[in-house]
Amino acid sequence: MRGEIIAIGNELTSGRIVNTTSGFAAHHLFEAGFDIYAMHTIGDTPTLIGEALKRALGRVDFVLVTGGLGPTDDDLTTEAVSEALNRPTMPNLDLLYQIRSHLQAVSGPVVSPLEKLAWLPQGAETLTPNSKMSGFQLIHDDKPIFFLPGVPYQMQTLLIEQVLPRLADWYKDRLLTVFQRVYKIFGKSEMEINKETKGLKLGEVVEIGYYPVFPDVHLSITVRGSDPVAMQNIFTETCDIVEEKMNQFIYAKDEENMESVVGTLLQQQGQQLTVAESCTGGLISHLLTSVAGSSSYYLGGVVSYANSMKTSLLGVPDSLLQEYGAVSREAAGAMAAGMRKRSAAHIALSVTGIAGPDGGSQEKPVGTVFVGIATGEAVQTHRFLFSGTRYEIQRLTAQTALDLLRRYLLR
Amino acid sequence: MRGEIIAIGNELTSGRIVNTTSGFAAHHLFEAGFDIYAMHTIGDTPTLIGEALKRALGRVDFVLVTGGLGPTDDDLTTEAVSEALNRPTMPNLDLLYQIRSHLQAVSGPVVSPLEKLAWLPQGAETLTPNSKMSGFQLIHDDKPIFFLPGVPYQMQTLLIEQVLPRLADWYKDRLLTVFQRVYKIFGKSEMEINKETKGLKLGEVVEIGYYPVFPDVHLSITVRGSDPVAMQNIFTETCDIVEEKMNQFIYAKDEENMESVVGTLLQQQGQQLTVAESCTGGLISHLLTSVAGSSSYYLGGVVSYANSMKTSLLGVPDSLLQEYGAVSREAAGAMAAGMRKRSAAHIALSVTGIAGPDGGSQEKPVGTVFVGIATGEAVQTHRFLFSGTRYEIQRLTAQTALDLLRRYLLR
Repeated sequence: MRGEIIAIGNELTSGRIVNTTSGFAAHHLFEAGFDIYAMHTIGDTPTLIGEALKRALGRVDFVLVTGGLGPTDDDLTTEAVSEALNRPTMPNLDLLYQIRSHLQAVSGPVVSPLEKLAWLPQGAETLTPNSKMSGFQLIHDDKPIFFLPGVPYQMQTLLIEQVLPRLADWYKDRLLTVFQRVYKIFGKSEMEINKETKGLKLGEVVEIGYYPVFPDVHLSITVRGSDPVAMQNIFTETCDIVEEKMNQFIYAKDEENMESVVGTLLQQQGQQLTVAESCTGGLISHLLTSVAGSSSYYLGGVVSYANSMKTSLLGVPDSLLQEYGAVSREAAGAMAAGMRKRSAAHIALSVTGIAGPDGGSQEKPVGTVFVGIATGEAVQTHRFLFSGTRYEIQRLTAQTALDLLRRYLLR
Repeated sequence: MRGEIIAIGNELTSGRIVNTTSGFAAHHLFEAGFDIYAMHTIGDTPTLIGEALKRALGRVDFVLVTGGLGPTDDDLTTEAVSEALNRPTMPNLDLLYQIRSHLQAVSGPVVSPLEKLAWLPQGAETLTPNSKMSGFQLIHDDKPIFFLPGVPYQMQTLLIEQVLPRLADWYKDRLLTVFQRVYKIFGKSEMEINKETKGLKLGEVVEIGYYPVFPDVHLSITVRGSDPVAMQNIFTETCDIVEEKMNQFIYAKDEENMESVVGTLLQQQGQQLTVAESCTGGLISHLLTSVAGSSSYYLGGVVSYANSMKTSLLGVPDSLLQEYGAVSREAAGAMAAGMRKRSAAHIALSVTGIAGPDGGSQEKPVGTVFVGIATGEAVQTHRFLFSGTRYEIQRLTAQTALDLLRRYLLR
C-alpha cells in the first residue's frame, strides 16, 4: 500500500517556510504500514496541482494533499481539484450553516470570503464536523484522497485523528505488519558499519539503512510482511545480530539520545555529575540539562574559557598552565580533579581543546582535544584530534566526552 | 528562470529524517532570482529518480538533485541518472587517484567501495577538486543539472559556493535583479509587526514577508525587477522605513544572530563578559562561544544548577537562597554580583528560573525567570514569565538575557 504527499504553497517553494508537515505525515504513515512513493511541494498553481494529483492517482493507492484550503485569494487547492477531477464544487450545507451562524454572531449578516470554505468538490466528505479546521476526503477511482490544511498543528491533528484510522480501515485487508528500529552509533563511520553488518539481510522482508546524522551514524532495521509472527521473529533475530556486531558502539535506540542515555545511567547508579568545559563553551552542560529531570544527577559546572577562570574557579595551578598549556592532558586532568573537589559530585568530566578556526599550532593543531574524567578511583585523560568547522569540533568533543562517560558508567 | 529540486533517500520518504536541504536550497535560489517550480522527495528507487529528472528537464531551466551519492549499497542516484540520460558511468581519474592515495595511506592497497564515488555519468564535471565532498554537474539539453550530497552541511556548502555562482553565470543575461534583506526581530509578535508595517508596500516590485522563526520573527523585504538602479532605490527606501518603525526591536540583519551581535558590541567596547546560568544550563555560554573569536570578550561562566553550586562557586549566601528561593530576583542579583566578583569581568549576566516540565508553584509557575546584569555601576534584575516546552523556555530565557545585554550595551 503506497501513497503520495502533495504540499501546496508559494511560501514553501520560495523556501520562506520549511515544510515540516510532509515529513511528519511520512513518518506516521510509514509506521502505520504505508509506503510513501513520493512527496511533492508545489506552488499555488492550479494546473500544477491538478497534474500532480492525477499523476499520483495513476500510480499509488492513496494521496494526501496539504495546504491551499484557506479563505484567501491564493488558496486554490479546492478549485484545482474540482477542475482536475471533473467534480464541480457544491456547498456543504452543514458547513455553510456553521460559518453563517458564526459570522452572524460576530458581525451580523454579511457576505464573507469565509463562505468559500463551505464549497467542496462533488462527493467530498468533511473530516470533522467542526468548521474551524478545513479538511475533506474524496474517494476517486476507488482510492482515498485526503485534503488537509497546511497549518502544522491542524494538519497533524487531522492526520492522526482522521486520516490514519480512515486509511487503516479502507485498506484493512491489505496492510503489512511493520517493525522498525533505529540504532544510533557513535565512533564508527557509515562505511565501517556497512562492512561489519554486510550479509546480514535475512531475506527480502528486511531493509537495512545507514545514514550519517552528524555526529552519529544511524542504522535502521525495517521488517515488513504479511505474517506478524514470522516478521517479529526475523526482526528480533536481525536486531540481535546487529546489537552483537556493533556492541558498545550502539549508544541509543529510536527516540533516545546521548544525553538521555547518560542521564538514565547516572540516575540508575545514583551518581552525581559536574562538568568543566573549555572549548565546548557550555555545550555539554546544555545537552545534559536539555533532559527533563536532569537536576537529580547534574549539579552544574564551570565554563573556564579564559585561563584565569581555570585557576580561580577550578584551582588549576597557574604553573601547570604555564608549563603544559591550557590545552594539554595535564590541564584536562587538573580541571576534572578541581571540578570534582569543588562540587562534591561523584564524577567530574572536563574538556579542553582548540575548536578553531584560529589558535592551532604545529604541535597542537585545530581540533586537538583532551577529555578528563575524575572519579573516586582515578583521573583518566584522553587525547583526540577532530576535524571540521568550529561547530563540528565542539559537537564532536561534546559527544565524545559524553560517550566516554557512558562507557565508564557501563564498565 | 525556474528550477526543480529532487531530494532522494528512503530516510526522507519514511519520515525518519526531516528534509531540511530542499527548503534551504529553495530559499537561496529564490534570493538569487530563481523560482522553484516544484520540489520532490523520493526514495532510492532508480526508475523513479530517472522519471522525476526527465520530467523536470522537460519543463524547467535547471534541476538540483540531492542525496544518494554516497558509497553504500543504497546510494543509487548516479546509476539512475546514468541510465535515465543514457550516459554510461566512467571513472573520474583525478577522484580515483585521490581516493586510492587516501586508502593507501590509511590501510595499504585495497579494493574499497569508496572507489564507487569516482564513477560519474559521462560528461559530468565535479563541483570541487576535493574528493571529501561528492557533487557534480551535468549539462543536458543545454540545461544545468547539479547533483549534491544529502548531508546538510555538505549540500549547503556546495550550493552556496558552487551551484549559485555557476547558475548565475549560466543564465546571466536572463536574470532579474533581486535585493533581499531579512530583519531579525525579538520581543514583538508577527501580528504586531504586520500591523506596524502595514501600508509599507512601495509598489508591485516589493514583497514583504513575516515569518515566526522561534524565538524571533523574521521580516523579509524582497525587491525584484529588471532595472537595477530603480530597484536599489526602492529597496533602500523600504529598508529605511522598516528600520525606523521597528527601531531597537530589530536586533540583527541577514546572517547575523543575537550572539554575534552581542559579541561585536562587547568587542567594540572592550568589555569582558562572564555568565552565571541556572535554568538555561549552559545554553547562553554555548551560544556565545559558538562565535569564532569569542575568547576575546567571553571569559567563561558557571552553570550553577544545584543550590550548592550557587553557594560554592558564586558565593550566593545560603541564607539568601533559604529566604527568597533559588528562583528569585535576589538570587539572580547575587549570582550576577558573585560571578562578576570572582571573574574580574566588566559585566556578569545571570539567569535563574523554572524551565519545567516540573518544579512550578502557584507563586512561581513553570516559565518564571529572573535575569540579572551586574556592571561596575549597578546590579539590575528583571522578572519574566515564559510559556512553552522546556526547550522553548530555555531558549526564550537565553535570547531575552542576551537581548537585555545588547540593549544595555547600546544604551
